[in-house]
Amino acid sequence: MASRLTRYERVAALVEDQVRRGVLRGGERAPSLRSLSRHERVSIGTVLEAYARLEGRGILEARPRSGFYVRLPEADRPPEPRFHQRTAVPARLGTAAVVSAVMDAAADPRVVPLGAACPSPGLLPYRMLNRCLRATIARDATHSVRYDPAGGSDALRRQLARRALLYGCELAPADVLVTCGATEALHLALRAATRPGQLVALESPTYFGIVQVVAALGLRAVELPTHPRAGLDLGRLAALLRTHAIAACIAMPTLQNPLGAAMPLEAKRELVTLLARHDVPLVEDDVYGDLVFDVARPPAAKSFDRKGLVLYCGSFSKTLGPGLRVGWVAAGRFTAAVARLKRSSTVATASLPQAAVARFLERGSYERHLRRLRRTFAGQVGRMSAAIARTFPAGTRISRPAGGFVLWVELPPGTDAIAVHRRALAAGISTSPGPIFSASGRFGNMMRINCGHPWSPRIERAVATLGQLVG
Amino acid sequence: MASRLTRYERVAALVEDQVRRGVLRGGERAPSLRSLSRHERVSIGTVLEAYARLEGRGILEARPRSGFYVRLPEADRPPEPRFHQRTAVPARLGTAAVVSAVMDAAADPRVVPLGAACPSPGLLPYRMLNRCLRATIARDATHSVRYDPAGGSDALRRQLARRALLYGCELAPADVLVTCGATEALHLALRAATRPGQLVALESPTYFGIVQVVAALGLRAVELPTHPRAGLDLGRLAALLRTHAIAACIAMPTLQNPLGAAMPLEAKRELVTLLARHDVPLVEDDVYGDLVFDVARPPAAKSFDRKGLVLYCGSFSKTLGPGLRVGWVAAGRFTAAVARLKRSSTVATASLPQAAVARFLERGSYERHLRRLRRTFAGQVGRMSAAIARTFPAGTRISRPAGGFVLWVELPPGTDAIAVHRRALAAGISTSPGPIFSASGRFGNMMRINCGHPWSPRIERAVATLGQLVG
Repeated sequence: MASRLTRYERVAALVEDQVRRGVLRGGERAPSLRSLSRHERVSIGTVLEAYARLEGRGILEARPRSGFYVRLPEADRPPEPRFHQRTAVPARLGTAAVVSAVMDAAADPRVVPLGAACPSPGLLPYRMLNRCLRATIARDATHSVRYDPAGGSDALRRQLARRALLYGCELAPADVLVTCGATEALHLALRAATRPGQLVALESPTYFGIVQVVAALGLRAVELPTHPRAGLDLGRLAALLRTHAIAACIAMPTLQNPLGAAMPLEAKRELVTLLARHDVPLVEDDVYGDLVFDVARPPAAKSFDRKGLVLYCGSFSKTLGPGLRVGWVAAGRFTAAVARLKRSSTVATASLPQAAVARFLERGSYERHLRRLRRTFAGQVGRMSAAIARTFPAGTRISRPAGGFVLWVELPPGTDAIAVHRRALAAGISTSPGPIFSASGRFGNMMRINCGHPWSPRIERAVATLGQLVG
Repeated sequence: MASRLTRYERVAALVEDQVRRGVLRGGERAPSLRSLSRHERVSIGTVLEAYARLEGRGILEARPRSGFYVRLPEADRPPEPRFHQRTAVPARLGTAAVVSAVMDAAADPRVVPLGAACPSPGLLPYRMLNRCLRATIARDATHSVRYDPAGGSDALRRQLARRALLYGCELAPADVLVTCGATEALHLALRAATRPGQLVALESPTYFGIVQVVAALGLRAVELPTHPRAGLDLGRLAALLRTHAIAACIAMPTLQNPLGAAMPLEAKRELVTLLARHDVPLVEDDVYGDLVFDVARPPAAKSFDRKGLVLYCGSFSKTLGPGLRVGWVAAGRFTAAVARLKRSSTVATASLPQAAVARFLERGSYERHLRRLRRTFAGQVGRMSAAIARTFPAGTRISRPAGGFVLWVELPPGTDAIAVHRRALAAGISTSPGPIFSASGRFGNMMRINCGHPWSPRIERAVATLGQLVG
């Protein structure tokens, strides 16, 4: 078993073991990067990688210009949010105005950005991106005055197909359609796989954008319990499939938003097999898949797709730039239908951003950028978690995400997260209140916190203010 | 009356009068630019503008390096297509594959581009556009790593609102939403104004993209007779509104695709008033409005909108660059609904193309570019019309468009335009067969011909080949 661990996993396991056995105690300084690197005969980068993972899991915490410290023991940490086990009945949404407020705040630099899941612009590789944009303009002056093929530029589709191997999928360029971000991918996938009025199965909680697409398409939703660590409850899904006609299931198996849950590989296989047995399409939202902390990139549920029933949706909005509006969908047997729908809804995706992303991927700098970004997010998530634990009232519970850059926070029973959201916005702080993550307005005392921005006094103050507003 | 004519209209009227009175005869050389300029005390540019209009109307024809000549008299010219007067019953579409073939051919440089309505890349201002793109990158390095507001960049919305005055509309920036091309504008406008299963009124023939959106949204279509010169038959529309519940009417009042019809201003007013009386929204597709040959820019139907019932859709795809994917919608009372739908379908439009278009408009070079483009298209339309008249069999009828760059061609009775389309494609020539311009597959012996490319021996040969395939 040990031999199958990567080097940084071995180093992380070593330190974690020392903490568990009490060799290293809460509040103590962890071994320096240099000493551990010498001792374990690994590079400093490997130790840094290991420490970032331990930080993401809440075992270490980084202190600026001071190194890594052991966090307080488990008993002193806030517990994780509860697993909400009820299967919710189909319902209609009434939280569009709150979602608009969350999204509008994201475009307003005066608001502290703890609401929408936006990485800090400073963490995204805009200099390299701009180089790629300029190089595209220089190499192909007429990029924007031609129509690209509706499915996307050939160069980008080749790169997307090549990269799909990293998450276990063998795709040809023709299997991949470029979209205006993952939202268009989800939108077209659902339109291809369902008809208005049909019933779809959602994770609960789930990304509010999914709730909105489902509502906008006139679909009805069943919300399935989703475990904060293990993801979608397959037993409940199996029961639902026996009793109801389900048109599609929408899930984020690799890294769930807002929970940060990661389904084990076997569960992913079972999910795909179970749905395939009932001929139910799976819309797999993998927007955060590249940002899993622990391993390079676990295989997607799509990798188990034998019947062309999985519509895999991806995006560069969380890792390269949301303003590019470049996403994609590998829609299996629905590919022709999605292409047709794309033609009648946006015709094609803007040419220049596509060409620049293809160039970025060709140069091979994307994987290096992802490694750095994951490490950064792990640190920011750890620091935000610690700050919430310090400043929020007793009874607060905090998720332990497997990656990405959001935390799911359960506030003390009776707290009204929408009221907190409103009060916080009035104080110049954006949050995403729980009810927008549900088609039936559940999770009234939950909120999602964006950790996409580097830690700063401004954010520290905002978290303290939030704690007071909650308490 | 005469005093209200612009200078070039006065010059055009003068020459047209001479042709009508037989002072200038078919085949004769028209007065040289220089002599007419001196004689009428106008600039050479004004005479050129006048001649381009006369060329667009088929009165003169330009011969390379030789000047302008009077076309053969009316009696020898092919007649215009007939006015198809039946109101077609709701029907389903079965021509998606043909549309795909037309669109795919547009992205294939080996095919002679007489199918999709694409201007030649060489006629679009890509050098200036690239300068604007580079300037945007230089001025704002983080343009693509932030989320733009869902409604679009403030700079672009300001420019769009400013320009709306040119077509008679007083709009605030907040009234305008930026979209991924006019297709997204149409798509969102229809989704906001209708529900699946409802009945919408279409022009007949109409742009095939509209037929596709209507089908994709599960709407049913009634096709209203549309006159090749005067546009939508308002009597028929009035009758329809009395007998049927119509959810929306979709029309191109300023410049109709494929007919090239331009509704007189009074008819536009009547259209808006009539629909408003029944509280029926008008989706106004004005993609070709900037390309009307005869006057600078007639007011849009939207300019008569008093109840917020007109959803005006525009685009830069025909005049700046289709690969930018920048369009817009001014949706009146549906603005909030369209914004919400935009958020759940593509979130926002790509940032960099928006910023570059805003910069292009700010610099004021757009109007100058449009003047040149209209003149060019008028010439190309005239030349194509003459070539079709020469090479197609007797019984062919050709439209006399008021602007734009397509011709609507009625082939001799019994000709199967889809069969011609297939044979032509096999010979490396793309055409748009009539049935795709109808929700019920009418216009079996019609075809639309793209004149967006400069005249060339390659195009001349292709037209001759088409004539043989038809005959």
